[in-house]
Amino acid sequence: MLLNEGRLRHWMEKLRLDAVIATAPENVTYMSGFWALPQWIRRGPQTYVVWPAQQIAEPEIITSTSTLDLIADQSPWVKRVRRYGDFHVVVGGDAADHAVSRQHAALNELPGHLDALAALTSALQEAGLAHANIGLDESGLLPGHKAALSAQLPKVQWTSAAALFRSVRAVKTDEEVERLAKVARIAERSIKAALAAAREGASERDLARAFDIETVMGGGAPVLSCIGFGERSALMNVQPSNRALQPGDVIRFDVGGRYRHYRADIARIATFGEPPPEVRRYHQALLRGVQYACEAIQPGMPTAKLFEEVVAVVRREGIPHYRRDHVGHGIGLDGYDAPTLSAGSTEVFEEGMVLCLETPYYEIGRWGLQVEDMVVVRRGGVERLMATDGDLIEVAR
Amino acid sequence: MLLNEGRLRHWMEKLRLDAVIATAPENVTYMSGFWALPQWIRRGPQTYVVWPAQQIAEPEIITSTSTLDLIADQSPWVKRVRRYGDFHVVVGGDAADHAVSRQHAALNELPGHLDALAALTSALQEAGLAHANIGLDESGLLPGHKAALSAQLPKVQWTSAAALFRSVRAVKTDEEVERLAKVARIAERSIKAALAAAREGASERDLARAFDIETVMGGGAPVLSCIGFGERSALMNVQPSNRALQPGDVIRFDVGGRYRHYRADIARIATFGEPPPEVRRYHQALLRGVQYACEAIQPGMPTAKLFEEVVAVVRREGIPHYRRDHVGHGIGLDGYDAPTLSAGSTEVFEEGMVLCLETPYYEIGRWGLQVEDMVVVRRGGVERLMATDGDLIEVAR
Repeated sequence: MLLNEGRLRHWMEKLRLDAVIATAPENVTYMSGFWALPQWIRRGPQTYVVWPAQQIAEPEIITSTSTLDLIADQSPWVKRVRRYGDFHVVVGGDAADHAVSRQHAALNELPGHLDALAALTSALQEAGLAHANIGLDESGLLPGHKAALSAQLPKVQWTSAAALFRSVRAVKTDEEVERLAKVARIAERSIKAALAAAREGASERDLARAFDIETVMGGGAPVLSCIGFGERSALMNVQPSNRALQPGDVIRFDVGGRYRHYRADIARIATFGEPPPEVRRYHQALLRGVQYACEAIQPGMPTAKLFEEVVAVVRREGIPHYRRDHVGHGIGLDGYDAPTLSAGSTEVFEEGMVLCLETPYYEIGRWGLQVEDMVVVRRGGVERLMATDGDLIEVAR
Repeated sequence: MLLNEGRLRHWMEKLRLDAVIATAPENVTYMSGFWALPQWIRRGPQTYVVWPAQQIAEPEIITSTSTLDLIADQSPWVKRVRRYGDFHVVVGGDAADHAVSRQHAALNELPGHLDALAALTSALQEAGLAHANIGLDESGLLPGHKAALSAQLPKVQWTSAAALFRSVRAVKTDEEVERLAKVARIAERSIKAALAAAREGASERDLARAFDIETVMGGGAPVLSCIGFGERSALMNVQPSNRALQPGDVIRFDVGGRYRHYRADIARIATFGEPPPEVRRYHQALLRGVQYACEAIQPGMPTAKLFEEVVAVVRREGIPHYRRDHVGHGIGLDGYDAPTLSAGSTEVFEEGMVLCLETPYYEIGRWGLQVEDMVVVRRGGVERLMATDGDLIEVAR
């Protein structure tokens, strides 16, 4: 299961919530296992999960009739479904012959509601939650929805649940770690495939194409393919262009796709031919920073403490003027999950967190250098999810 | 330019708006030409465009310091930029040597604001809009943002601008039509590549992989790759599985990627070996529906009228029980732009609209059939953006 149910229950009890409602796609998939295509590729389509405290009622998915096929096909662990809106399908004579078709036909027979909010209102009323304290993740709703919901259910006490979902999702289940390990490896292999296309005159786009194809071949979907050469490697979000590879160029990868909805975000640096001495020295300092983080992180350690220490290591090891806002972040269904490894963070590392540890350095007009690894926090320290180290890669000309 | 400026001005005057503010990624890119990676791949990062009525002030982009590299690299047509938040970069000695680096360094010198809302508030105040009537697209804001903005600018009269942006975006500029034509062709070529992988025992995933790779090769990004065999072709949102191709299977494609941020959405049907007679008959009726739409659409025609006529054609041509909510929709930066071709729509076709015309038919347990073409409405009628017709494709076994 993706959901860390124990952690959810803990937070719901602590905040005395009778139920929580997920509305953002990441939270809906996380709570139910249901991936509703329309809300993932557009903004607007509404799918929710209502998760009552134990013994109040069963968890329930609320989704449009036009997405019931995906429920039938995915068999999410939340079994109760409420549908809204019309979508015309014919039930063929063969529907009973296939489990998914049978389930699709059965879901189609559920009573329909006028729209998403009407379905949500009725779900809360039927679950006896019309006077409850409900944690609502508002971020997937449309403008006006929250006000309409409050008007329909005037006795409900609404609590913002964005921070709750963020906190619950920070500590990964085994299934989540497996997916994250897999997508990290896909990204590593994609970097290797991109570098195989590196030759004098090849463009950033050529390498990005090779990168994305390898990601697709590995079962992933391209998301983040920042690949820059030379002075363009200093553009933090560099989008691949026709810039041609030249001897001595830095090649910066800040990349990662999605695998079964989970994100990768890793960084590696290569040079085309021998690296300039300064690049080698600076890169080594950045690598030492990430290596230090891997050695130092323990459950219970404040993330802000690690931040200070990593910045100090990079400064000591070769970039005395190094400045940075954060040296890493969680990753999961979203590219930036909790925690944030920054000076101002009050979070602590916990067993099961999956982190991107990173020490980027951008020098406009010259180059950007960056090491970023994905790791999982274990009882005894950090386990790297990477097959490669973060060494500077020298591509032969 | 992507923006249909004349249409925007027309609507702003009609609604007596002194300015409009875009917050959703589609509207930000549309208004400015600026594609801010973080807001496109995550929910949360904030980038805005403030567009005052003429003679009040210049349009302005508001974005985080960490995205200024993308502004430098993309040279959006909105030239005024306001940044917020910190992001540490070093300006190297070579920054002046490259136009993009130079521009990046210059943008970095702009005065910084604490956060997105502080930057937006100051932009509106400096433009003399603190007492104005402002159209706001709220959909990209985070929960609480609208209330905070209203508190900061208590004299502003806020008007919801979601419908305005939707209406302006419905009529495409030449540059938009070019991108849409290109992405439609990429989708067609990707279907051809997928079908080249069709052989007995090949899986839906095998075809989807071939599809996505061709999309990447064509310069696109995979988004919608619904490819289903046999009974799975009746799943509206079918996600490719290990289902193996068998003789007589229908193969349904409802697919389309993104090219320079613009979406494709087309559908084609193939059969593996000879199609069952009913598939041939039904498909022909659906094709006639789309062909009729291509012949009938004229600027000024109500979309609801076309909807009724297309459904009648499909019924008459071979599926007497055909029922459908809509027979098409606009497409652009979003997969569902205005207009909607449905019974309840009050929109009319206008020159320059780009449409997906579609007649899907789903019979659970048996098969799904669908024809979907992308077209642009011209003065004299519809111009198809497709290189292929919608004929049933018979793949030799």
